[in-house]
Amino acid sequence: MNSRITDRLRNKQLQSLIVSADEAASWIKDGMTLGLSGFTRAGDAKAVPMALVDRSKDEPFKVDVYTGASLGFDIDKLMAEAGIVNKRLPFQADPAMRKKINQGEMYFIDQHLSHVAEMVRADVLNPIDFAIVEAVAITEDGAIIPTTSVGNSSIFLEKAENIIIELNVAQPLALEGLHDIYEVGQQGQRLPIPLTSVDGRLGTAGIHVDVNKIRGIVLTDDLDSPSTITPPDEDTATMANHLITFLREEIKAGRLTNKLAPLQSGIGTVANAVLHGLLDSEFEDLEVYSEVLQDAVFDLLDSGKLRFASGCSITLSEEKMKQVFTNLEKYSEQLVLRPQEISNHPEIIRRLGLISINTALEVDIYGNINSTHVGGTKMMNGIGGSGDFARNCRLAIFVTKSVAKDGKISSIVPFVSHVDHTEHDVDVIVTEQGYADLRGLAPVERARVIINNCVHPMYKEQMSAYFDEALKRGGQTPHVLEKAFSWHTNFAEKGTMLKQEFVTVK
Amino acid sequence: MNSRITDRLRNKQLQSLIVSADEAASWIKDGMTLGLSGFTRAGDAKAVPMALVDRSKDEPFKVDVYTGASLGFDIDKLMAEAGIVNKRLPFQADPAMRKKINQGEMYFIDQHLSHVAEMVRADVLNPIDFAIVEAVAITEDGAIIPTTSVGNSSIFLEKAENIIIELNVAQPLALEGLHDIYEVGQQGQRLPIPLTSVDGRLGTAGIHVDVNKIRGIVLTDDLDSPSTITPPDEDTATMANHLITFLREEIKAGRLTNKLAPLQSGIGTVANAVLHGLLDSEFEDLEVYSEVLQDAVFDLLDSGKLRFASGCSITLSEEKMKQVFTNLEKYSEQLVLRPQEISNHPEIIRRLGLISINTALEVDIYGNINSTHVGGTKMMNGIGGSGDFARNCRLAIFVTKSVAKDGKISSIVPFVSHVDHTEHDVDVIVTEQGYADLRGLAPVERARVIINNCVHPMYKEQMSAYFDEALKRGGQTPHVLEKAFSWHTNFAEKGTMLKQEFVTVK
Repeated sequence: MNSRITDRLRNKQLQSLIVSADEAASWIKDGMTLGLSGFTRAGDAKAVPMALVDRSKDEPFKVDVYTGASLGFDIDKLMAEAGIVNKRLPFQADPAMRKKINQGEMYFIDQHLSHVAEMVRADVLNPIDFAIVEAVAITEDGAIIPTTSVGNSSIFLEKAENIIIELNVAQPLALEGLHDIYEVGQQGQRLPIPLTSVDGRLGTAGIHVDVNKIRGIVLTDDLDSPSTITPPDEDTATMANHLITFLREEIKAGRLTNKLAPLQSGIGTVANAVLHGLLDSEFEDLEVYSEVLQDAVFDLLDSGKLRFASGCSITLSEEKMKQVFTNLEKYSEQLVLRPQEISNHPEIIRRLGLISINTALEVDIYGNINSTHVGGTKMMNGIGGSGDFARNCRLAIFVTKSVAKDGKISSIVPFVSHVDHTEHDVDVIVTEQGYADLRGLAPVERARVIINNCVHPMYKEQMSAYFDEALKRGGQTPHVLEKAFSWHTNFAEKGTMLKQEFVTVK
Repeated sequence: MNSRITDRLRNKQLQSLIVSADEAASWIKDGMTLGLSGFTRAGDAKAVPMALVDRSKDEPFKVDVYTGASLGFDIDKLMAEAGIVNKRLPFQADPAMRKKINQGEMYFIDQHLSHVAEMVRADVLNPIDFAIVEAVAITEDGAIIPTTSVGNSSIFLEKAENIIIELNVAQPLALEGLHDIYEVGQQGQRLPIPLTSVDGRLGTAGIHVDVNKIRGIVLTDDLDSPSTITPPDEDTATMANHLITFLREEIKAGRLTNKLAPLQSGIGTVANAVLHGLLDSEFEDLEVYSEVLQDAVFDLLDSGKLRFASGCSITLSEEKMKQVFTNLEKYSEQLVLRPQEISNHPEIIRRLGLISINTALEVDIYGNINSTHVGGTKMMNGIGGSGDFARNCRLAIFVTKSVAKDGKISSIVPFVSHVDHTEHDVDVIVTEQGYADLRGLAPVERARVIINNCVHPMYKEQMSAYFDEALKRGGQTPHVLEKAFSWHTNFAEKGTMLKQEFVTVK
């Protein structure tokens, strides 16, 4: 066995367990439940899921697939297209899988990312037959060192009946030492989680498992799929500026200093662009306590603006990946990767008082947020960690462009077609038009500031007309219920939310 | 000064501050913000708000009124009718105030009860000009001993510029020692809350204040308004039985023992009846970690079924109040009252793994819950603590009768007209028809079990027709958006949600 492998597979007894991905995949039977590593394309099990997809060509079967969050490498796409997934949770972000979900051909449970481990631990979900987890190393004493994400791997490994490790020799060994694995224990018997700062370390560098459960070790050498974020554009830059203006007002009011507070930022282009906007700000000595660490986090670290980043995964563009993973040592004192139960834990989020920035799909005039469902019915990706953060943070900020599809869709509607975050949980809305600070406002006050500051000009008159008609009917949260979804039905019928009577000649 | 007063007002320097309620009320000016004690009719400031209402007859003014939760003694009614409230938060339960809110004559902010203290501490809301807090005693060193609730009193007293104490000589002195006052501190600088069991004590028996801020002490002698819960009826007893059946299944599955887990139960008749149902169960050595301690909690203590109860207020019927408050010593080792920030804290709720039982106003087929808005627009009471508990507990159970207004309203609808708890947060629905265990189910699976187990027979066909039509359109969460609120509009137009084509001759 060459040193490239023995350097990473340090427990000699386990060396006899090396098998091909095909062989490992052959152990998985119809009806089983799998717990896969992987969080936003980072650190996912790659080879065994691929081998499973291959196997399905000869033999039909279905499994339930639990993960940290979305997978890379088209694994969700291939599994969905092969029809081998019965039920998937808690998050996905793949167009082909999305299609199958929305056609009713597979089940998807859209869960708060901090809740999955709790449900697995309490035996509420199906027992996990196989945990399949990517590792950068297995230590002498059999501890699993994760790669670029921790996700739900530690609870999957603890609770699974069998374990398959994908030992990835391409992932940089410098990842070892970045992780902080902490197990909270059973509800009712656990202690406070002793984390009081973003850079605190509570646990161990590896995941300690019962080595007798390890059935096989598969060697792999593919890096993660790069992220698909697109560069900031004029609108996202404007949104970043509005957000910075808001934060400056908070400093003026004495509620923040120019160190701000630990930042959380959701996955995706808009959130990345907003974080990117901090590069040129006067804020300094910043901290990140988030789930995904995207390109902007490393740009902020490089610029000296950011002191420390705690996350659950590192998901980078191809270019940034090369740059970061060849110099990972340089960040070793400034990074930690935690289980998603800890990165997203209400206890920690509230204690640290995060500033939380997440993307909305749709916002309504009273501040309710739809993060998940297009037109109220079709799943996009899932709520992810946005609920964990928005509910418990210091400042729950949601960002969205005010219109989509060349203006045919207004992101701000009378009544969101699906509610993921209620009016009780949303502090600030930011669009490229401006920001609406909803704190301390009653519903009708919120509606006025959202309409004034955030709605796109082409929809302002149409929105004011709805709100005025609703106000005449009265109530704490005035609505014209029979017209509440009329913008959506107008879009479904006529291809635009803009109603004929409000189209103005330009 | 007689001993009835000096026994309670033990700090001699403060004795000179005794004033009439009218004088204290005269200090309050137009535009001020008041922080009142009081949580679900318990421990509310009584005399000064009444005097304020009187003063308004001569002099128009408006104030913002922050409390723990609802007030007793018709204070909300009288303040609303006098038109002296500009903005009210975070909860109310008074029909007259509700009417003013829904007519748009005053503002109401409906907040998670655990969030208020955080917002006051962080100076997000208006500064509090006067904290007006009921006390059973003031100690030698100036600590305020609350009466039958703690609510937000500690943070109001800390942050207010001026303090008025209503020293209530009718409240039993045996209340002293029941409270446990703990201040969490600023976000970002705080430690874990060291509570790991329902009976833990973290803080002090009284609220330590800057005595220089005390402007006046008003003597009062009225007990709290009794609760308005009605006795269990056939339906609520049936619901309690369904819930007990569910809990037995959890024990069989090995997820609970017959000690269950700490119980939280919302305010109101249904939740009280459900707790009452545990009296005749085989469960034992129970614990309560809740906000309001209602009659059923004391019946359970008396029966020996309940070991310990932690709450934020004690709200009892007239009869039960006499019985409990004349024998309060007997419960002294079994009770603790905490600030609502602690009774409702996500950190503690998740750590202890509560079983949470709250009342729904309206449920939809995918498990979203409306707790607050009648017909989507008119405020009933507010979300209260239900969100704090449902999001973070072990088991989020919502109870509701399947129909209201003699069957003219189905409590289960295609799409709730307001969302307070999203599909991500709801585990079990209980109606008198049965229970639906939604854990581990995708939306369409949830719909089937809710329709089968919880919908009233008279609405089953109508609901199945909606769901079937929605299924044909597909999606993760199938809907017929243009008909999603048609049950509500049918009720508005025709006085019943039951559509003509589904009326069957009986």
